[in-house]
Amino acid sequence: MKKIINDKQTVVKELCEGMVLAYPDIVSWNEQYNIISRCQRNTQKVTLISGGGSGHEPAHGGFVGRGMLDAAVCGDVFASPSIMQVYNGILRNASEKGVLLVIKNYAGDMMNFKGAAEMAVEDDGLSVEWVCVNDDVAIDNEAERRGVAGTLFVHKIAGALAEEGASLQQVKAVAEKVIQNVRTMGFALKPCTVPAKGKPTFTLGENEIEMGIGIHGEAGVRRERLGTAKEIANEVVGRVVADLPFKSGDEVALLINGLGGTPNQELFILNREVRHILDEKGIEIHRTMVGNYMTSIDMAGASVTLLRLDAELKRLFAAPARTVSWNTQD
Amino acid sequence: MKKIINDKQTVVKELCEGMVLAYPDIVSWNEQYNIISRCQRNTQKVTLISGGGSGHEPAHGGFVGRGMLDAAVCGDVFASPSIMQVYNGILRNASEKGVLLVIKNYAGDMMNFKGAAEMAVEDDGLSVEWVCVNDDVAIDNEAERRGVAGTLFVHKIAGALAEEGASLQQVKAVAEKVIQNVRTMGFALKPCTVPAKGKPTFTLGENEIEMGIGIHGEAGVRRERLGTAKEIANEVVGRVVADLPFKSGDEVALLINGLGGTPNQELFILNREVRHILDEKGIEIHRTMVGNYMTSIDMAGASVTLLRLDAELKRLFAAPARTVSWNTQD
Repeated sequence: MKKIINDKQTVVKELCEGMVLAYPDIVSWNEQYNIISRCQRNTQKVTLISGGGSGHEPAHGGFVGRGMLDAAVCGDVFASPSIMQVYNGILRNASEKGVLLVIKNYAGDMMNFKGAAEMAVEDDGLSVEWVCVNDDVAIDNEAERRGVAGTLFVHKIAGALAEEGASLQQVKAVAEKVIQNVRTMGFALKPCTVPAKGKPTFTLGENEIEMGIGIHGEAGVRRERLGTAKEIANEVVGRVVADLPFKSGDEVALLINGLGGTPNQELFILNREVRHILDEKGIEIHRTMVGNYMTSIDMAGASVTLLRLDAELKRLFAAPARTVSWNTQD
Repeated sequence: MKKIINDKQTVVKELCEGMVLAYPDIVSWNEQYNIISRCQRNTQKVTLISGGGSGHEPAHGGFVGRGMLDAAVCGDVFASPSIMQVYNGILRNASEKGVLLVIKNYAGDMMNFKGAAEMAVEDDGLSVEWVCVNDDVAIDNEAERRGVAGTLFVHKIAGALAEEGASLQQVKAVAEKVIQNVRTMGFALKPCTVPAKGKPTFTLGENEIEMGIGIHGEAGVRRERLGTAKEIANEVVGRVVADLPFKSGDEVALLINGLGGTPNQELFILNREVRHILDEKGIEIHRTMVGNYMTSIDMAGASVTLLRLDAELKRLFAAPARTVSWNTQD
């Protein structure tokens, strides 16, 4: 294992500290519970909290700030934060307007975030609601679908509505609207290496690609021959489009997300292929983002996310945001 | 070689097209000469042009836009663009206030950018000046020092002054001031793979680190035992600080730059170590940036850049910018 680290046991604490040291005007850090919070706390709005296992940097701490999250609760690498971490994240950031938790659909996260919400409601009388993101189309059974890169669009759009002063029910409703309209599929060319384990999470031959991977180093749903960028895009976009389904005339936001070890040049080449396919299908791209947003440590590969937009979602997508990794200008 | 590509011969064209398809409100593309230009051309300001070999994405196309570059001329991977490419970049973007070329100190780039400047001056009567960036402290001989990640600070600061309407001589002077005050050193944990070659550019053992690498896949100046993040930071920062030298009380901008295959979490851990060292030395960090800015395809590793700031440089660093990969809000 070759990594720029000090100690495999302290990776998460050190990366959190490294982030807030770099961007002290945007985020602050609670070391005890590993919570990244907004520097300029705004108690006049619904509090938006997400998080989960670490290893997805810049998610979720990189999306804390004006117009997006109020806090991100950081678990160990690929492990849910504990109930007490999430509970403290709620207590320390709650506003009178209430708290919305954005949870990715993993058993540990669902249990701990919901458990923390119950504690905050029952013990502290807070208003806490939650939504569950499950945008990964690689898995047929909808109940088992994982929350992956599409989660960022929930952060952005629910965050924008919260910033406008909407109620908890309104913010929850728009988050659910995003979840209903967002779909993602990912693939890996190379596995990732969890620092504490020190070995790649799976092995893949020189001509193989793992289709339908999640973001926790798990193997995908199918192993295939590695094709061209065009062939990869055809398969991935085909699955994403068929699932909702997205139709000719739909307007979408597109996220070409690198998984951490993929060079920028390959993401741009993939975007070109995805774009050509969507053009042929008559699906109109309102906005595109290309980069490392929801990673799987150092995995080589990418995911493609489509979000179907309406006038409300377009307005909120374009609203100002000021975070470490997503800046939309006023 | 495992990459998301179609054809190793068309990588650069496809990545350029992929970039402008993603960000059509910011950049446009001249396919014939592989030039990325600003969409909203401003002929009332000095034109700032950079470029060089591709493989450094998002540099340089990702830094084209309001407040930074007017155009980036894109050569093949790790190869200078031709004189005709650069000449066309000048002709198509020149303003009456003149053109400044920001050249990284490589023989091919220096020859072709300067040759193109001469053509534009002699054949077309344009005002064209150039500056040479050589921020890499790994090489002792100053004449041979390469231009690496510090180039971005030249783009940002000269770009901001040009946007304010300054003269060609003023913009050139501030670019040279940045060059005099910026220093960088990089290291690699894993080599990169140039698409056309298909093999890693060097080999490195499981416990080895290559110190003093450039951004073209070349081996560094020393091969060492891979240490902790703290040990790496100590060596790299020590070299950078001693070179200018940076002194207690200096205010600096800090860039922790990933080389393409390094996960975000490691860059944040590195930032934490660099920060602690600079704190001990009494060097004050005015602004930090952490991410993949000047890459070497998929190389695992990073570079550390320090720029000594004065009041003018701080003002220009903070000025608005709107590009694919560097956004500073108004």
